[in-house]
Amino acid sequence: MRTQVAIIGSGPSGLLLGQLLTNAGIENIVLDRVDRNYILGRIRAGVLEQGTVGLLDEAKAGKRMHAEGIVHEGTSLAFNGTHHRIDLKELTGGKTVTIYGQTEVTHDLMDRRSETGGATIYNAKNVQPHGYEGDRPYITYEMEGIEHRIDCDFIVGCDGYHGPSRASVPENAIKTYEKIYPFGWLGVLADVPPVSDELIYANHERGFALCSMRSHTRSRYYIQCPSSDKAEEWSDDGFWDELRRRLPKEQAESLITGASIEKSIAPLRSFVAEPMRFGRLFLAGDAAHIVPPTGAKGLNLAASDVHYLFEGLREFYGEGSSAGIDDYSRRALARVWKAVRFSWSMTMLLHRFPENGEFGQKIQEAELDYLVHSRAASAALAENYVGLPF
Amino acid sequence: MRTQVAIIGSGPSGLLLGQLLTNAGIENIVLDRVDRNYILGRIRAGVLEQGTVGLLDEAKAGKRMHAEGIVHEGTSLAFNGTHHRIDLKELTGGKTVTIYGQTEVTHDLMDRRSETGGATIYNAKNVQPHGYEGDRPYITYEMEGIEHRIDCDFIVGCDGYHGPSRASVPENAIKTYEKIYPFGWLGVLADVPPVSDELIYANHERGFALCSMRSHTRSRYYIQCPSSDKAEEWSDDGFWDELRRRLPKEQAESLITGASIEKSIAPLRSFVAEPMRFGRLFLAGDAAHIVPPTGAKGLNLAASDVHYLFEGLREFYGEGSSAGIDDYSRRALARVWKAVRFSWSMTMLLHRFPENGEFGQKIQEAELDYLVHSRAASAALAENYVGLPF
Repeated sequence: MRTQVAIIGSGPSGLLLGQLLTNAGIENIVLDRVDRNYILGRIRAGVLEQGTVGLLDEAKAGKRMHAEGIVHEGTSLAFNGTHHRIDLKELTGGKTVTIYGQTEVTHDLMDRRSETGGATIYNAKNVQPHGYEGDRPYITYEMEGIEHRIDCDFIVGCDGYHGPSRASVPENAIKTYEKIYPFGWLGVLADVPPVSDELIYANHERGFALCSMRSHTRSRYYIQCPSSDKAEEWSDDGFWDELRRRLPKEQAESLITGASIEKSIAPLRSFVAEPMRFGRLFLAGDAAHIVPPTGAKGLNLAASDVHYLFEGLREFYGEGSSAGIDDYSRRALARVWKAVRFSWSMTMLLHRFPENGEFGQKIQEAELDYLVHSRAASAALAENYVGLPF
Repeated sequence: MRTQVAIIGSGPSGLLLGQLLTNAGIENIVLDRVDRNYILGRIRAGVLEQGTVGLLDEAKAGKRMHAEGIVHEGTSLAFNGTHHRIDLKELTGGKTVTIYGQTEVTHDLMDRRSETGGATIYNAKNVQPHGYEGDRPYITYEMEGIEHRIDCDFIVGCDGYHGPSRASVPENAIKTYEKIYPFGWLGVLADVPPVSDELIYANHERGFALCSMRSHTRSRYYIQCPSSDKAEEWSDDGFWDELRRRLPKEQAESLITGASIEKSIAPLRSFVAEPMRFGRLFLAGDAAHIVPPTGAKGLNLAASDVHYLFEGLREFYGEGSSAGIDDYSRRALARVWKAVRFSWSMTMLLHRFPENGEFGQKIQEAELDYLVHSRAASAALAENYVGLPF
């Protein structure tokens, strides 16, 4: 088989890139080690920046998102028993975020790919990129015991943190940066109306809590928990009780609870690999960087990588210029580090860090107090939250 | 002896409070363990916030400051070989800072105090506040072996970190917060023209550097150094060479050097004591809080404490209301913590912290890059630098 661009991974970044390429008449194949249903079974957050919404529109995969997604013009920070709204729209000159689950984004992109005849190979086992340091890269994979090969111009690794793309790069060609936060997020998904129309990020002496949602009838709540906790050891009642304790009285009293559909603990980590290009192999999204969920930058960063990479590939095929792909890693990483910084700072601001002592705690309280009372500081938070420009 | 307000310490906070009280017809005595010349021999930074300038005017001690002080409408952050100006005036709707040495402020306040007949007792040894938990506080001190006593309505401790006022408070009545930074500032004062019209705060891989000034012909430069360094082990040439290495090429090449008038190493520390009132004893300035010099908040915080305390005392004597003095500690501490937060964040942003690893270093670079390119973030820095409102 031969194609122009071979994309490893059919999560939102691989599918979004594939769709943009397909729309531009650039041939591509998407491979995934699992199948469509497995991918759609993953539950992930979904706060889409305006730029991400724009890219989904550009991919012509935004129709259902606009119909079912919920536009949020603000978000709240809760501490000291009360909450303070950050007016995102007013502070950013009209920008908003859209609540629409990552699973739905993936679903829409899969449907769009089917409609436009894009090739996806599911259940491709042992996918491996090869020869990308030279002019003739190719991918090998196995299916039912038989090895297959796809020759291509470029390979794109959209295969996540554990995927084969980054793993194939020699250790001395890549530099990684990492920070592990000493706690996790226990998350519960439940078919109950959200306690608030907008998200509430709560800093409480018992730990961080987040009131989020997937729709008007499905809520997603999180609480900071020790890394050593096990989700199965938390009862639904135990979770709801702890969540209530960490919310301002108004929200604690109006919280509607119900049976959990899903309950899991996610670790919090910041990770960046540099560079994001190795000859004719590009990394995008989680394959190159991980952010803690605070501020919901993961999917949005994957989308901005795709934006830069698509521009480069379009220039390459359309104008015969390699300037865009040559500059991909630098451009993408400049924005990646800004978002890594933001999600790190939101994480440091909102969680409890007993190891930082009483001084650290007071600094955090002063920062929250300053943040919600200073227009400039609120505007800085808002512009990062809705997404810095590409 | 009897007075209305006994002020321990004749640094700028004690003298400023004394002058405001004198102007308002409230009797006061200032005591100091050393003499006028000793106090005027201390070399301290002098970046005055607009609010501090306003208070010196209110005290009618601002004439020479306006004649000789240098108004700065901006300041620069240098990193990655270049520097970025923060336009303080434009970003804050017209606010500026004034460069005028703390020693000069003290001098002017001493002169004003003499002119208006305020009593100052120098060389008062073993000053001790007493009885402030009841209605009849008094101060004792010794002079030439004889103990003296001053009865008063209120005692104000403007006697610095090591003074007797805070030390007299029972340990269980006071809560302290502290952070020690793992480095110092090696500072050199020299009679050479400043390398730049405005201050330059430089983040460099070899460590922080600051280009500051006292006047158009007297410069004050600092470099981050290990806490274990000794000032006397640094030659003038060694200092200038190291400073040059940490500045952008343009400044390094135009730096004019000369013999040091003064050379010393200051430790960096954040410290806050709560509350700032104990019955009829108030703490103000360094007696209650210390900030690292980054951002030059020390003197300005002392001035804002004095502002709140003077308002309270004026209300007490003028209107018979104790509302202002009852609220002094809360009001003062709210602003103190905002400035403690700012000087902590400037310190964390601009110095090198090898213990934070490569991830911490990249976050710092991303923060600097974001800060100078985001109007909102620059505005937040600027509003703190010129001083948050009282």
